[in-house]
Amino acid sequence: MQQAKARIDQALHGAVARGEQRGAPPRLAAAIRHAVWPGGARIRPHLCLAVSAACGDGDPALADAAGASIELLHCASLVHDDLPCFDDAATRRGRASVHVAYGERCAVLAGDALIVMAFETLALAAARHPLRLPRLLGVLAQRVGMPGGIVAGQAWECEDWAALPDYHRAKTGSLFAAATEMGALAAGGDPDVWRGFGEWLGEAYQVADDIRDAACDEDMLGKPAQKDRTLGRPSAVHEFGLAGALAHFEQLVDHAGQSVPEGPGAKALRALLNAEAERLLPPTVRAQAVA
Amino acid sequence: MQQAKARIDQALHGAVARGEQRGAPPRLAAAIRHAVWPGGARIRPHLCLAVSAACGDGDPALADAAGASIELLHCASLVHDDLPCFDDAATRRGRASVHVAYGERCAVLAGDALIVMAFETLALAAARHPLRLPRLLGVLAQRVGMPGGIVAGQAWECEDWAALPDYHRAKTGSLFAAATEMGALAAGGDPDVWRGFGEWLGEAYQVADDIRDAACDEDMLGKPAQKDRTLGRPSAVHEFGLAGALAHFEQLVDHAGQSVPEGPGAKALRALLNAEAERLLPPTVRAQAVA
Repeated sequence: MQQAKARIDQALHGAVARGEQRGAPPRLAAAIRHAVWPGGARIRPHLCLAVSAACGDGDPALADAAGASIELLHCASLVHDDLPCFDDAATRRGRASVHVAYGERCAVLAGDALIVMAFETLALAAARHPLRLPRLLGVLAQRVGMPGGIVAGQAWECEDWAALPDYHRAKTGSLFAAATEMGALAAGGDPDVWRGFGEWLGEAYQVADDIRDAACDEDMLGKPAQKDRTLGRPSAVHEFGLAGALAHFEQLVDHAGQSVPEGPGAKALRALLNAEAERLLPPTVRAQAVA
Repeated sequence: MQQAKARIDQALHGAVARGEQRGAPPRLAAAIRHAVWPGGARIRPHLCLAVSAACGDGDPALADAAGASIELLHCASLVHDDLPCFDDAATRRGRASVHVAYGERCAVLAGDALIVMAFETLALAAARHPLRLPRLLGVLAQRVGMPGGIVAGQAWECEDWAALPDYHRAKTGSLFAAATEMGALAAGGDPDVWRGFGEWLGEAYQVADDIRDAACDEDMLGKPAQKDRTLGRPSAVHEFGLAGALAHFEQLVDHAGQSVPEGPGAKALRALLNAEAERLLPPTVRAQAVA
């Protein structure tokens, strides 16, 4: 886990530093750093590396790049989601969001640059196994773009009507599915048997986010609370109530555990899953939720 | 030329239609169509196909995808440039810009989706020559992202100071250079000998844009005029005056023509260049500029 953390940070540093070479506009470079560090839990790249490990980790550099590319896209989505025209969030991870710190123009461009950087990072790491690149890129694009990636998921907020599972699957589940599929692909494994694990975990993650949004205050979250209610957005809490959403979360984590393919890495992955479930909804938040 | 036009349009239609499959959010899908059609002159993909032809056009599908990916990124940049926080342009190509027609949120997301679609389009077309993909992707990312692509170029508008040639090279020259380099790469040719042609033409294009912005009215442009002056942006007209900018344009077109590598396709490419120079600054505009 500690080693994975170092690998992820190194891959992210490499990608961002490449963008800061001679001629880079300094404000945009600073805005990009602000978007990427300090990170959250980096759960998506951790998941990617864990699945790569379960598949033998046959090309660590490619797995690192796959994990970093997913994290860069996650950061891009946060920067654009925080913009005034979307969530209008002034804080993120306990400090100013990118558009508050660097202005709206730099925030739009930082998101754009991070998307490009994600694809570039993957392309540059494929030297040893170039034939794995087309499918890795295909999965990444599918999980981010149209018709069912995170960009499409975000766009459901602009529609009059959206089915909650479709919305969650696209908005959050997508990058988790990408993490497991790409971890497998980077190591020469079969992405199809790993998709379910990522999808269940991703849906659980979104439900946990809905619960925290409803049950915690801004101090606990490091960002504005009660956003879903304020913005009238689809939410598992709105649909099932707090206790119902909590039960739904437990069920999704169970499904995720059951979907881990049996093999040498299965035990470690289930341990990662349980630790993540505990981190997502610690006892204090669960107590708030059933209070 | 007619055949190239059909190839480009077919490649764009294929890319956009793939994003409209089952499950796509309809407003975002419509916003993307609005951003891509009706197009402008599609000069970047035309350039890409012309260079591929000069290099033997050994993989037409890959050349088409390369051209389409560049055009999708060009469309993405126009959508984001028109946003209220940048140019705040209500019209583009004679009708409502994307954020006016579909709202700011859909415009941000349409740009994001188009960037992803560009990389996806390229990845999907590499079946016959997968080993050409890493370098094609690398060039595309370099010409779009940080430190010197169009996103970086746009970001110079957020800095207190920018050198005009650096700014132009990044903002407009980049995608022209990408077009010539990728046209060569798609056909198995050498991108390095084609870079200069794209760069000169790209710089000429930007100077022509500055001249039109200063010399034409909104009816002639199909978008707001005098933007550079209104927004206090670096401009060749501001730097050299209208007549000086026109002389600078002619010089850049000359340089572009001289940088075309000798070979079977050189004559056709120089004809394309001259036709493009005439289209960019027709006699009526030149008359305005020296009036």
